[in-house]
Order: sequence, then structure tokens, then C-alpha cells
Amino acid sequence: MISNPELRKRGLAHFERLFGAGAAEALIQDMEDICPDFTDMSIEWAIGGITTRPGLDYVTRELVVIASCVTLGHTVTQLRAHTQAALTAGATREQIIEAILQLTFYAGGAAVRNALVHAKDILNGAVERKGE
Amino acid sequence: MISNPELRKRGLAHFERLFGAGAAEALIQDMEDICPDFTDMSIEWAIGGITTRPGLDYVTRELVVIASCVTLGHTVTQLRAHTQAALTAGATREQIIEAILQLTFYAGGAAVRNALVHAKDILNGAVERKGE
Amino acid sequence: MISNPELRKRGLAHFERLFGAGAAEALIQDMEDICPDFTDMSIEWAIGGITTRPGLDYVTRELVVIASCVTLGHTVTQLRAHTQAALTAGATREQIIEAILQLTFYAGGAAVRNALVHAKDILNGAVERKGE
Amino acid sequence: MISNPELRKRGLAHFERLFGAGAAEALIQDMEDICPDFTDMSIEWAIGGITTRPGLDYVTRELVVIASCVTLGHTVTQLRAHTQAALTAGATREQIIEAILQLTFYAGGAAVRNALVHAKDILNGAVERKGE
Amino acid sequence: MISNPELRKRGLAHFERLFGAGAAEALIQDMEDICPDFTDMSIEWAIGGITTRPGLDYVTRELVVIASCVTLGHTVTQLRAHTQAALTAGATREQIIEAILQLTFYAGGAAVRNALVHAKDILNGAVERKGE
Amino acid sequence: MISNPELRKRGLAHFERLFGAGAAEALIQDMEDICPDFTDMSIEWAIGGITTRPGLDYVTRELVVIASCVTLGHTVTQLRAHTQAALTAGATREQIIEAILQLTFYAGGAAVRNALVHAKDILNGAVERKGE
Repeated sequence: MISNPELRKRGLAHFERLFGAGAAEALIQDMEDICPDFTDMSIEWAIGGITTRPGLDYVTRELVVIASCVTLGHTVTQLRAHTQAALTAGATREQIIEAILQLTFYAGGAAVRNALVHAKDILNGAVERKGE
Repeated sequence: MISNPELRKRGLAHFERLFGAGAAEALIQDMEDICPDFTDMSIEWAIGGITTRPGLDYVTRELVVIASCVTLGHTVTQLRAHTQAALTAGATREQIIEAILQLTFYAGGAAVRNALVHAKDILNGAVERKGE
Repeated sequence: MISNPELRKRGLAHFERLFGAGAAEALIQDMEDICPDFTDMSIEWAIGGITTRPGLDYVTRELVVIASCVTLGHTVTQLRAHTQAALTAGATREQIIEAILQLTFYAGGAAVRNALVHAKDILNGAVERKGE
Repeated sequence: MISNPELRKRGLAHFERLFGAGAAEALIQDMEDICPDFTDMSIEWAIGGITTRPGLDYVTRELVVIASCVTLGHTVTQLRAHTQAALTAGATREQIIEAILQLTFYAGGAAVRNALVHAKDILNGAVERKGE
Repeated sequence: MISNPELRKRGLAHFERLFGAGAAEALIQDMEDICPDFTDMSIEWAIGGITTRPGLDYVTRELVVIASCVTLGHTVTQLRAHTQAALTAGATREQIIEAILQLTFYAGGAAVRNALVHAKDILNGAVERKGE
Repeated sequence: MISNPELRKRGLAHFERLFGAGAAEALIQDMEDICPDFTDMSIEWAIGGITTRPGLDYVTRELVVIASCVTLGHTVTQLRAHTQAALTAGATREQIIEAILQLTFYAGGAAVRNALVHAKDILNGAVERKGE
């Protein structure tokens, strides 16, 4: 892939901010044996090129991504990762729950129930971790 | 349907706030000849029971609903109505566009492009109306 | 396509029963210039091979197909055709409306609302036709 | 949530009828640490407010819900629960299998095959239980 | 957007090859009043960065995109554009029809039928145009 | 089911070619206790009646099926089986990866990432097996 150093820098910084130190390295290793360019596209285009744009704050961007994952239904890995990322970006537990619940009449109650169960894992785990 | 006066009052007030005076009457007439109870469910449960809950501001609720509609792809009527509702709730033009654009790597670029075309109709119409 | 005379006979008979005399001819012409074998697959496999099986009555089969179309959201032509077919098979207006409404917490309220609007066209047209 | 005692009573009774004694308690505990109001919405709105309406029998309501879950594809928990609920409501094994099979040309054969594998678990388990 | 001149050149060239001279200009104008950066993302990332990669020929890339659009069901504009693009890239009429038909047991017969109707418009129009 | 000996022969031969000797027997046993006719439909209609048609080579047919599975998102069993089948039909590792990657702007990056992870299992396993 033709990499762009500025997008890469911006993408890597925000990726590690959202998903924790070492997250980019894990992503690189995950795709290494199958399609390394997909990592670059994720970091440079999706994160560096879109998520870090001005005009919408990071909390809302994460809630909007969660809404898309709840609606798709099958992107469980991403739903869980972005629930954690929303917390890290500064969303409250209540904002995340309300954003999922708001989709009951759009994605449907079954999708919402399943998403709440995944969110419970992440949010309660996070709360406990803070209590350590 | 077993109606709840408090949810009804709350739902009607927020429905008219988002979609304009007369919107509830239009919704009632729309469903009158097919399933009047669905109007009550929409107003009392979806709006009065969920959208007006505390814990997440109205602008974010509308952006989250837009995200679900972009992802579903086939709910064009709702996508357009909630784009207008997001504006009315106080979202900026830029926030709405960025929320849609953010979904490029989730709902896919084709769904995003089609949603931007619908948003253009609503947002540019709204801008022109303000310029009258 | 390797046609099967028995499935064909069975499929054609049920197809015309559900969609009216001349419906098979219209289907054949619709696919003639693009993929005539798809008509045979629809009549012999989908209708002759599946819909006419014993074990589930025709009304329920139509309601189950309607439920799938409501959930897919984008198969409007089929949703409308099977709403008419459900009526013809003997479903009441109320059964069709309730089957769609039942999906509010599965397909979501937006998909249900759009399906009810299509059902209104078909059901009210049918009622009026009976009233002629 | 503003609870409605009549919808609650109706919803709880039908919920336990479909999913067995203790099912409501399990649902309440499942959502307790994440979004208790979602349990109330499920029991009062989805079950008490929609599923128990007149105009469509309980067996057909369950088959219609199964059809929506087969089409969504990702709501496996609900597909399995409603396959059991359909049996409990009085559907025959054959009706459930035929309802799923009917979707081959709508939800697609891959979704149908996966749903049949889940139904096998439930239906064969149920048959064996009867044989105890 | 941070534009990349090499991806842009590559993307523009292939975009005009697939969709005809002037197509890029039309795309730019289409997004101008709503989100001009989305045009750049489409040309530089989707076309210049992905579609023009080695390892898979252009005809197969177009058929694979058509398969995704048939399955999504709601991306009609893209389905029609890529049916034309597949022809332009060198796909035969028969290859396009067979690729759509192949999805009958995956996307479902309803989605396939609707896609064949759109393909008919494009393919028969194209045939006629060649006959001018 | 009314079986067709010619479609059955053709379907069985291609099924074993794609999925290995014994695959048909496994499929038969898988559906035996739930819906044996579904096996016949899969072999005679889907494989014997569609996949073995002329007009599109087997490699492209497999890539097109993979594209549909990536887009559906929830048909993981089929995605993995057809990734193996594509290899067996003669697709290169690179063609399969590029076909999945091509969908980033259609099925979305999250669906593509998850599909690449499944493909990694199959493709790397296959490579290792060859290296035995």
C-alpha cells in the first residue's frame, strides 16, 4: 500500500489512545500472515483519515460506530472493542447503554438485547478494574 | 392498545418538537386505516419511553438513529426524517455529515454515499430555508 | 435448466392460485430477456418444490415469507406480492397486520412501519375491490 | 421506566407460558447489572403489548418471529429460544421445520441451513425429553 | 483530506476507464455540496488503493462487488453502475447473469430476482447501444 | 422431495470435487435428523442446478459466493467452507484475499476484517498441509 506518513502518525496515535498501548502492534500481527495492507488501511484511512477529523467529538464517533455494529449484529468483535473505546474516549456508562437502547425501534430489540449483554461484559469489567 | 397518559404526553411533546407541529396528526392519519396502535407504540414507547430518557442528549440520540438507518440501508424515510430531526434538535450540518462519513468502514462506502445524497437534500433544503 | 414436469405442474398451479391467472406468463416474460431459467427455478423449486409441501398451511407459509421480506427490508416487490398472496390464500386482513406488527422487536419498528404502509396499499385496495 | 401493571401482568404470564417457570426471573437477572428497564420493555411492550394481542394465534406468532430471526442470521439466542417457545405454544416439529425451509428463497439457503442446525438441537432435545 | 497524488492518478484513471469519460467530474459535483472529501476517499482509497491492486483481475473484482450489492439489496445505484462497469471491464453478459444467479442460495431468490431486473435494464440497454 | 437423477449425479460429483470425498455423506448425516430434503435441495438445486452451469468458471463462482458470505456476515460456516472450496477449485491465495479486501467499501471494513481472520485459518492451514 502507498502509505501516507501524516495519516499514519495521526492514525497510530488515536488508535493507541482508544485501544491502549500495544494495540497497534497486536493489529499488525493479527493481519501479518494474511493481509498486512489491511492494517495500514485501518490505521491510515479509517482512523487517521476519518475518525480523527474535526467536526464531531470522539465520544459521539464511538457511539455512532457502536450503533452501526449493533445494527449489523454480526460484528461482535468490533462492538466490544468500540464499547471499550467509547469508555476510554470519555463516554459514561449511561451514555453507552442509552445509545444501544435507543436502537430498539431501529435495529430491533433482539439485536439490542444481544448488544447489551456484550456491553455488560465490557462495562462491568471496566468498573471492576477501576475498583481494584 | 393500553395507553399510558404520561408516556403519551411526553412522547407527543418530543415528537412535535423534533418533527414540527402537526407531525403527530400526520402520523396518526398515516396509520389510521391500517394499524392505529402502531402510532401509539411509536409515540408512547419509542419516543415517550426511550428517546426522552435522561442519560443521552437529544442530538446524540438522533445521530445514533441516523447511524442505524445508514446501516440498515432500506429505511430511507426514517433516514431523511431523522436527518431533519437532528438539525431541529440542534446538531450542526457538520456533525450530521461526519456521523454518516464515520460509518464508511462499518456500514460500507456504498451505504454512506447513498445516505450522503439523502442528507444533501435535507441539509441543503434546510440551509436555503434559513436563508429566506 | 433440467425441468421436472411434476414439480412444474405443481408449481404453476399454485403460482396461479396465489398470484392470479396470467401471473406465470407475466413472470416468464419478465425474465425472458435476461435469465429464463430463473423463472423455472422459481416455479419448480421455490413454489413446486417448497411452498406446496405438506406440513404447513398456505396461509402460514405466506405470513412467514412476509416476515422474511419485512426483515430484509429491501424486497418491496415481494412484500407487496406476498401480502396479496396471503389474502388470496385465505389470511384475514388482521392476521397480516398482526404478523407484521409482531416483528417490531425483531426487524425493528422502522422496517415494520414501512411494511405497514405497503400493506395498507394492498389491503385497502383489496377491500375496496371487494366493495365494488 | 413507567410501568403498566396490566401489560406487566399479561406479559409476565405469557412469558412464563412460552419460556417456562422462572424464565422471567432469569431475564430480570440477566439485565439487572446493565439495563433493568430493557426487561420491562421486553415483558410489557414486546410480550404484554404485542405478542398477546388478539388476531393472530400464538403458534403463528412464534413462526413469524422465527422467520425474522432466520433472516437476520445473527440473533441465534432468540432463534433457539423461539424454536422452543413455538413447540411450547403447540407448533409441531414439522411446522417449525417447514417454516424455516420456506425461507430458502428469501433469507437464502445458507441462513436456512444454519437455522436448521440450531432447530435440530432444540427439536431433538425436546423429543428426547418427552421420551424420558 | 490529505490527498495522495499517486493514488489519485491511479484512481481517476481506473474510475474513468470503468464508468466513462466525465464520470469523475460527475462524482465530484455530486458530493460537492455535501462532503467533497468522500469523493477523494472513493477515488483514492476505494479505486486507487484497492480496485487497482494486482492479484485479482478487473472483471472478477466487478463481479465480486456486484455480489456484495446483490446481497446488501439496498445499494441499487451501485449495483447498476457496477453491472455497467463489469461489461466495460470485459465481462460477458453471461458471466454477469451467472454471477447474480449463483447467489440464489446465499442472498436469496428475492434479492437475485430484483438484481436480475436491474441487470436486464443495463445489459439490454448495452446490447442495443452496441447495435446502433 | 422429487429427486432428479441427472441433477443429483452432477451435484454430488461437483460437491465432492469442491469439499472432498465423504463431504456429501457428512452433509446427508448432518441434515438426517432434521430435514433430509434440504440436503437434496442443496446438492441437486444449488450445486447440480446452479453452480455447475456453464458461463462462469468455478473459481469465480466460489469468489462470488465468498463475497455474499462476507456481506451477510453471519454465515461463518459457509464462508470457511467456500474459502477452502475456492482453493480446491484452483483459486490462488492472493485471489481469495483480494476478493475479500475488495469489499471494504461495500460490506464494510469490519465485515472484511472478520472474514480475513477466518480466511487466515483456512489459507494458512492449507499452506501448512501442502508443506507436510
